[in-house]
Amino acid sequence: MRIRELADASGVSIATLKYYLRENLLHSGTLTAVNQADYDASHVKRVRLLRALMHLGRLSAADAQRVLAAVDDETIPIHDAFAIAQDAMVPARDRPPAAYRQALADVDSFVKRNGMRVRPNAAVREMLADAVVTLTEMGFAQQLGSPALSNLDGLVPATLALSASEVGTTPIEKSRSEQMEHTVIGTVAFEVVYDALRRMALEHASAERFGKQL
Amino acid sequence: MRIRELADASGVSIATLKYYLRENLLHSGTLTAVNQADYDASHVKRVRLLRALMHLGRLSAADAQRVLAAVDDETIPIHDAFAIAQDAMVPARDRPPAAYRQALADVDSFVKRNGMRVRPNAAVREMLADAVVTLTEMGFAQQLGSPALSNLDGLVPATLALSASEVGTTPIEKSRSEQMEHTVIGTVAFEVVYDALRRMALEHASAERFGKQL
Repeated sequence: MRIRELADASGVSIATLKYYLRENLLHSGTLTAVNQADYDASHVKRVRLLRALMHLGRLSAADAQRVLAAVDDETIPIHDAFAIAQDAMVPARDRPPAAYRQALADVDSFVKRNGMRVRPNAAVREMLADAVVTLTEMGFAQQLGSPALSNLDGLVPATLALSASEVGTTPIEKSRSEQMEHTVIGTVAFEVVYDALRRMALEHASAERFGKQL
Repeated sequence: MRIRELADASGVSIATLKYYLRENLLHSGTLTAVNQADYDASHVKRVRLLRALMHLGRLSAADAQRVLAAVDDETIPIHDAFAIAQDAMVPARDRPPAAYRQALADVDSFVKRNGMRVRPNAAVREMLADAVVTLTEMGFAQQLGSPALSNLDGLVPATLALSASEVGTTPIEKSRSEQMEHTVIGTVAFEVVYDALRRMALEHASAERFGKQL
């Protein structure tokens, strides 16, 4: 298919496709003439993955590249590839480590207390610690609970159940690349779903508290 | 205080502070000498807000600017300012409207069915629709439920309760700008907390399904 058809099939603009090609995020098509290339189903799949990562998930090109490397390396077992992709999805911090040492210790004991299988060096621990530092600075410490994020404990069982059901949908009968694609897009897109749901609930709560009476 | 002290007090680098100043995201300090300015508590507060929006929340400079405008305009009632800030926090879409017409209709009936007070034109509806399109394309339609995202209905009561408790912490005895700051940072930072919790649960679920036996 031509680039216009690839744009239609994948739902992104030609300008965005050209950007992906320029950044080597998308493999080139087969050249059929000067300035004309042919694209196939592998391109459609890759563009959908890129779209989920960069648009829905707001990853930078460099971070998306790290996820793709884990998706593409067939020698990495799927759980390890998932871990690499997870780490790449956490934005780099600009905060000096000293500022969140206590928060990180709290996160570690939260994970341990709840028996969660999360790698000791997983980037998601720093992601949570970073938010905890901001919330503590802003006076939300009480909402997080003491000791060590204890107010989040009540959310763990439901979150684990939802996640197990999501991971349970991984199509293990399909190829490794399709399993990875499914896992990565599911991670990103369901995160947006839950975020949107909470933002709607916040708007509702704000309307109830501050809005005009209906 | 000098720029170095502002950096220490707010936890961001001098380079980032200079970027905020250059982009007019942060008001200038009082010039005390050539190339030397004095900063105060208002700068610390603004930098914390910017940090939450741009680093934790990954907003672009332009979107952060829109949130700040709503925070700063004292003539806008607080619930309306919250709505403006909410909209600014939703990234722009590059998807043609036709692709998500059905998804948007599903979102609308989900909101209506659950009695949520969300503005008809709130950007968060498009945020959710965008994720729904991606999930549907990727074969997750069954997980969303039919009709119209019915599998999310079960999450609504708990999400509304959490949000009401968050909005309940708004310090209404404080100034409007402090209330707005509290609301915006709470929205962004708790979102990161919940996202991190889910990502940990996914790592746990992946370890349970695909990982080596412990």
